[in-house]
Amino acid sequence: MDKIKVTVWSEGLPESEIYAVRSYPDDINAAIAGFLTNDASLEVKLSHLSADECGLSQNILDETDVLVMWSHMYHDKVSDEAADRVVRAVLQRGMGLVLLHSALFGKIGVALLGRCGAGGKYRECGERSRVWVVNRAHPICDGLEDDWFDIEREEMYGEPFGIPTPDDLIFISWFQGGEALRSGAVWNRGAGRIFYFQPGHEEFPIYHENKGVQQVITNAVKWLKPARGPIPVSRGEVDALEHMPDALWPERLERAKGKINKRPQPGEFSL
Amino acid sequence: MDKIKVTVWSEGLPESEIYAVRSYPDDINAAIAGFLTNDASLEVKLSHLSADECGLSQNILDETDVLVMWSHMYHDKVSDEAADRVVRAVLQRGMGLVLLHSALFGKIGVALLGRCGAGGKYRECGERSRVWVVNRAHPICDGLEDDWFDIEREEMYGEPFGIPTPDDLIFISWFQGGEALRSGAVWNRGAGRIFYFQPGHEEFPIYHENKGVQQVITNAVKWLKPARGPIPVSRGEVDALEHMPDALWPERLERAKGKINKRPQPGEFSL
Amino acid sequence: MDKIKVTVWSEGLPESEIYAVRSYPDDINAAIAGFLTNDASLEVKLSHLSADECGLSQNILDETDVLVMWSHMYHDKVSDEAADRVVRAVLQRGMGLVLLHSALFGKIGVALLGRCGAGGKYRECGERSRVWVVNRAHPICDGLEDDWFDIEREEMYGEPFGIPTPDDLIFISWFQGGEALRSGAVWNRGAGRIFYFQPGHEEFPIYHENKGVQQVITNAVKWLKPARGPIPVSRGEVDALEHMPDALWPERLERAKGKINKRPQPGEFSL
Amino acid sequence: MDKIKVTVWSEGLPESEIYAVRSYPDDINAAIAGFLTNDASLEVKLSHLSADECGLSQNILDETDVLVMWSHMYHDKVSDEAADRVVRAVLQRGMGLVLLHSALFGKIGVALLGRCGAGGKYRECGERSRVWVVNRAHPICDGLEDDWFDIEREEMYGEPFGIPTPDDLIFISWFQGGEALRSGAVWNRGAGRIFYFQPGHEEFPIYHENKGVQQVITNAVKWLKPARGPIPVSRGEVDALEHMPDALWPERLERAKGKINKRPQPGEFSL
Repeated sequence: MDKIKVTVWSEGLPESEIYAVRSYPDDINAAIAGFLTNDASLEVKLSHLSADECGLSQNILDETDVLVMWSHMYHDKVSDEAADRVVRAVLQRGMGLVLLHSALFGKIGVALLGRCGAGGKYRECGERSRVWVVNRAHPICDGLEDDWFDIEREEMYGEPFGIPTPDDLIFISWFQGGEALRSGAVWNRGAGRIFYFQPGHEEFPIYHENKGVQQVITNAVKWLKPARGPIPVSRGEVDALEHMPDALWPERLERAKGKINKRPQPGEFSL
Repeated sequence: MDKIKVTVWSEGLPESEIYAVRSYPDDINAAIAGFLTNDASLEVKLSHLSADECGLSQNILDETDVLVMWSHMYHDKVSDEAADRVVRAVLQRGMGLVLLHSALFGKIGVALLGRCGAGGKYRECGERSRVWVVNRAHPICDGLEDDWFDIEREEMYGEPFGIPTPDDLIFISWFQGGEALRSGAVWNRGAGRIFYFQPGHEEFPIYHENKGVQQVITNAVKWLKPARGPIPVSRGEVDALEHMPDALWPERLERAKGKINKRPQPGEFSL
Repeated sequence: MDKIKVTVWSEGLPESEIYAVRSYPDDINAAIAGFLTNDASLEVKLSHLSADECGLSQNILDETDVLVMWSHMYHDKVSDEAADRVVRAVLQRGMGLVLLHSALFGKIGVALLGRCGAGGKYRECGERSRVWVVNRAHPICDGLEDDWFDIEREEMYGEPFGIPTPDDLIFISWFQGGEALRSGAVWNRGAGRIFYFQPGHEEFPIYHENKGVQQVITNAVKWLKPARGPIPVSRGEVDALEHMPDALWPERLERAKGKINKRPQPGEFSL
Repeated sequence: MDKIKVTVWSEGLPESEIYAVRSYPDDINAAIAGFLTNDASLEVKLSHLSADECGLSQNILDETDVLVMWSHMYHDKVSDEAADRVVRAVLQRGMGLVLLHSALFGKIGVALLGRCGAGGKYRECGERSRVWVVNRAHPICDGLEDDWFDIEREEMYGEPFGIPTPDDLIFISWFQGGEALRSGAVWNRGAGRIFYFQPGHEEFPIYHENKGVQQVITNAVKWLKPARGPIPVSRGEVDALEHMPDALWPERLERAKGKINKRPQPGEFSL
């Protein structure tokens, strides 16, 4: 079976040293790739915001089945063009997308899920979080031994979280300071699927050390392999599939003839 | 009980005569208001795109519990500022929103529901459509006598429709030419709720004449009356609700003290 | 406007003294009715398991718009006939149903939601629970001042909870001992709607004292007022709505003629 | 990779000749197995109602990853014990379940999805049905060339269908006689997943001939391979995960100690 091509992207800016050095001197993308490469079915590459075209060029995306994105501080530095390329890859081609921590709040998350995608409560004192499995039938839970796993030091995000209603809710999290959160959720959008997962504040070595978080992200990447569903065969006016002798305007029915089989060409946006 | 304040908005441009004269010489907003005013619990006003501030000024929105929007041809003429005001009214204050026909594809629909909100199949030959009730437990179906109602002449919209998964699917439609569509759907977003309803191509006098369509829109307006749920009490850093003697960084816990009760001020965007 | 007829039902058995005396010497139904009667739009009656026909006779149900049920220990004492009457009232007539605490696990909950409706983790040490608002657009949150409210002493229920995916998730709860739970959820079933709400262990005076719990249950009862959607006009074979000259078996098409308008008669089960 | 073990079950009774001879002289299970065996990742066995223990013995189920069921006329002949075994295999062990045509209306469908699972409109004149893709991101749509496929002769099922709200809606169908239907849907229940698919009336050779139907069922079987999520580690009273010096009843907290790690034993029903 062909390997799943995964690109792991994070901010990786020089100025991000301010925080990254604490737990991720080699940036967060490397830490995530570190455990993903343990799975033989995955072929993993790195990318980051300070690369050309924000590290999200069309060439890179065309070679990506699943894109894993971590961002927290520099949402605005992703160009509109780069965000647009990612959105199209998801909607049109079914590229899988993992949005980690506050990546949901960036341009790409808002474009795909709508503006309510922005929450906003946080606390960074380094408290305990506990991730509870809500839907154990989901392949994203594969191999988890228990109903829950702990994250000893985490940033708190709380409800009301402001995300659109998930198409599938997989995890909810308990926080030591008294909050609860829908922390793992899935949405279908166009030809693609999106998984949001809250854990991973940059000041704690969560991606390096937490086995539960590593398992979930690995599972998610495998589950997000693009489906090969139908490409919508037409946009715009389409021919009728049934005979309609009593249509009000036969000339328009005639006009639509043969407009069934037009498929979007490469570069055309079908949505 | 106080009346529900409804504003019905449509394009109403001089150049829209091209199509509007056929069935709606007095514009579509007037036709919709015509049947809404039969319900004594509603107080109905009109607005339109060619008015000041696109007919969506802050004053108008502040006096609106539920906004009914019809648009088809001039999505781009709604200014970014006007669209932003509507989005905030829905997310922050819970203003109800009815999006009719292709209003879903405009700036406001995309901002609230995400870019996958754009579908695109159509056929305008004047064929029969039949609206089937899927969820008869929903108040939007109140008073419908049968499981379905017919629209003798309608534009076809078809699947795959590209809308985000509805929070509640109320209607699906059958089209004479062979298509089917999720034609009536509800989404919760922030403090607000949104209802999309497909019927109402401008070349057919559907809003003037179709009792089923009139009943559904009337029901929707009443159902969309804003709930008075909690206003999120804080955005940004928040105080802990539980005692945490073992937090990693007590100074940050201290820093968050008292940050629980800040509510967004008028004009602040809480989402 | 007509009042909403509410029946509040609880176990109320003599042997239930074992637990009820602690916090509810007059049984739980009376405590719930106590705060519901403060709302002028509600007409509240009591019923209980030790009455005739398990307190769920057809006469009682026929006079009930919304049934509120609390049970914990005597699920099996509800007769199959009584459970069946409640299920039919929900599915056929749209009677609203509030299932409190472990009422979800009884015959009625299982019949309406399926066998996965049974969860099972608990702890009764009297710990703190905190109910968080997830969907503040929902009328069940009307009038809540904050995003959350506390219950000082509660029984813990935890995830994975085993409920079917909610049609709408309204609340999630945080527990002091480390668990989290989807604690307030809504399902549409047939003509009716169901609200499950976890709070209310019988050893703590929650329904007597907790303003948040009282507000939510009051809101739920009002929101669950039956919609007056269409009664399915037929079960069994039905006439075609379109002309089909090319049907394979014209004689069966003929046989179905006129079978469109049969509505279920009183006593017939349409589902 | 290990093959997925599939059992295809149908009614297969002598008396079913009445209908089966028309299109399926070798019974329907054989026809379905016929195309499933073309997929090298599947290991396919047959079973049927007239075999010992209704063809659903514990031995058979223990060797089944995904069970495909077709039934229409003899729902009541499935014993309560056999139905219970299937329900447990889904909820506890995550066995995938495909319910075809009216299999949804049998004991197993009702037990898993609730009594509202019963619809009821039909017409058997041999009309055209067209299956439309609603969610093309779903692996169940893999390899479908177009947005839709036709079934030339089919029995009509119509809305309101009475199924519980799907966790994911994949297909809706158009019928020539004027109806529309949610015809392909998915539910998560306990550890398992269920796919319902409407096509396949016994009088038409749909499973023998229709490439779209064959593709969808093959995809569904592969997608329903059981996830290996956590087995709930306890039912009943459970230990606290957090220290609670202020619990009301420390003796009960003490009583719960060590009750975290009990897993259900073989034969125990955890739900």
